[in-house]
Amino acid sequence: MLIIYFLDLIGTLVFAISGSLSAKEKGMDVFGALVIASVTAIGGGTLRDMLIGSTPVGWLGDLNYLYCIFGGLFLSLLFKSVLSRVRRALFLFDTIGIAVFTILGLEKSLDVGVHPIIAIMMGTVSAVFGGLIRDILTNDVPLILRKEVYATACVSGGVLYMGLKYFGVHEIITYSATISLIMIIRLVSIRYNLSLPKA
Amino acid sequence: MLIIYFLDLIGTLVFAISGSLSAKEKGMDVFGALVIASVTAIGGGTLRDMLIGSTPVGWLGDLNYLYCIFGGLFLSLLFKSVLSRVRRALFLFDTIGIAVFTILGLEKSLDVGVHPIIAIMMGTVSAVFGGLIRDILTNDVPLILRKEVYATACVSGGVLYMGLKYFGVHEIITYSATISLIMIIRLVSIRYNLSLPKA
Amino acid sequence: MLIIYFLDLIGTLVFAISGSLSAKEKGMDVFGALVIASVTAIGGGTLRDMLIGSTPVGWLGDLNYLYCIFGGLFLSLLFKSVLSRVRRALFLFDTIGIAVFTILGLEKSLDVGVHPIIAIMMGTVSAVFGGLIRDILTNDVPLILRKEVYATACVSGGVLYMGLKYFGVHEIITYSATISLIMIIRLVSIRYNLSLPKA
Repeated sequence: MLIIYFLDLIGTLVFAISGSLSAKEKGMDVFGALVIASVTAIGGGTLRDMLIGSTPVGWLGDLNYLYCIFGGLFLSLLFKSVLSRVRRALFLFDTIGIAVFTILGLEKSLDVGVHPIIAIMMGTVSAVFGGLIRDILTNDVPLILRKEVYATACVSGGVLYMGLKYFGVHEIITYSATISLIMIIRLVSIRYNLSLPKA
Repeated sequence: MLIIYFLDLIGTLVFAISGSLSAKEKGMDVFGALVIASVTAIGGGTLRDMLIGSTPVGWLGDLNYLYCIFGGLFLSLLFKSVLSRVRRALFLFDTIGIAVFTILGLEKSLDVGVHPIIAIMMGTVSAVFGGLIRDILTNDVPLILRKEVYATACVSGGVLYMGLKYFGVHEIITYSATISLIMIIRLVSIRYNLSLPKA
Repeated sequence: MLIIYFLDLIGTLVFAISGSLSAKEKGMDVFGALVIASVTAIGGGTLRDMLIGSTPVGWLGDLNYLYCIFGGLFLSLLFKSVLSRVRRALFLFDTIGIAVFTILGLEKSLDVGVHPIIAIMMGTVSAVFGGLIRDILTNDVPLILRKEVYATACVSGGVLYMGLKYFGVHEIITYSATISLIMIIRLVSIRYNLSLPKA
């Protein structure tokens, strides 16, 4: 659906912004910021595509993803103060991005014929591994491994999606419900500072 | 052979246990432990499959690997004290796992038509790169790059395997001899604290 | 062209030398040095091949790359003092290597049908990501993300290559001009200590 494609692009833009800002904090140069922005925005989907063998990986065939990354880099280098004022809107789009990345990753994996459990995993990989690779590049222990905020939301959304699909619910309702659930879990977990128990 | 498949699954379980314990020591949460357990157990084979182009990578098509990872995670979160009591048995299975991972990686690579030298390399990658990626994720300089315990064993086993295969030795003897050699080299190198010279 | 193939092998050898020396400084053992040498020399091209789906990745099918890596490792372990005396020649071949890696990566990507902008990116990935992965393995924040010396040169060379190709300029002139531009930008940027602005 076209709306999902646009949300995917917006998610890419917002992830690229968060990657650029993180590179800026680390004192990297413009090229470093471009690499970190790219990795944050498309790293998860890239890993998923390499795992399921869908190559050339997705963004190599659609320049719009590249434009979104350059847009995100540009915005964060020039309008940092503006960005900090719209922080809440950014956070909302970041959360929508995670939800959309999960759904698209799940669907793409189902298309190559893997088991639904694996597809849910691949949806989660699509949504969270960009941030994980970013943390490796900036030499931090990945945040997501220490204090999970994303993955439970993605897995729950993935399970809901598979359930609704199984019962033949209409696509629009499935998408809306899945995106809503992922967003609610993430927002609630942050509002009440919830996290998974330590290992 | 069925026995090799079972040994592969046991190796996956034991590698997942060692990954989970390592995540626990690093103070990660349950999701982090799942990621580290997965990477340790199937990271090497995943990289091999991506390199030789055998996609979707192996474990995406066989849920048993996933069950072994969850099993390993579960065991290490709940029965840590029991695990420390069976440490010797674990170490033995870990070593068998390395041997089996080497053979299976080597065979899978030969199947896509690469040169035997490359196949031996890919067998070694299958056995040791899971631990290497784990160390990257937990932000350590990979142990295997500083004080090698595994790779010499894997390469030696790979060479023996190719030699026996070349002379048409029966499969069971080839497997037994290769697994034995890899285990002996590893056990002896640990017993006498042997390691490769510094670069 | 045969000359490009030889320059590619020489680049591989020189990159392997620089990787081995870096592993030596980090106190790694011989196996660690082999891994770091390999990653530095063929890591960029390997990532490119996995992204564009050209598998088994290139060096798996041509043992000459492996021989160059072993050669580089051997030279740097045995003749370190000699290497430091030919440092300028090594630096020159390193720069030629970057230029050739860029061109070959760009051409291979065009062959799978991606957009020229993506091909230029893949050329740059081929040339610079080997060093980046090396820095991740040795647990440094990648140099290239902090103080870029390579990427601008590669991108400029890639743009020139596409322009000359578009106007049907002869292959030899296209290669020579592209290699020259990449080398000049890199040499000038080092001579005058130029770098990209901070993010």
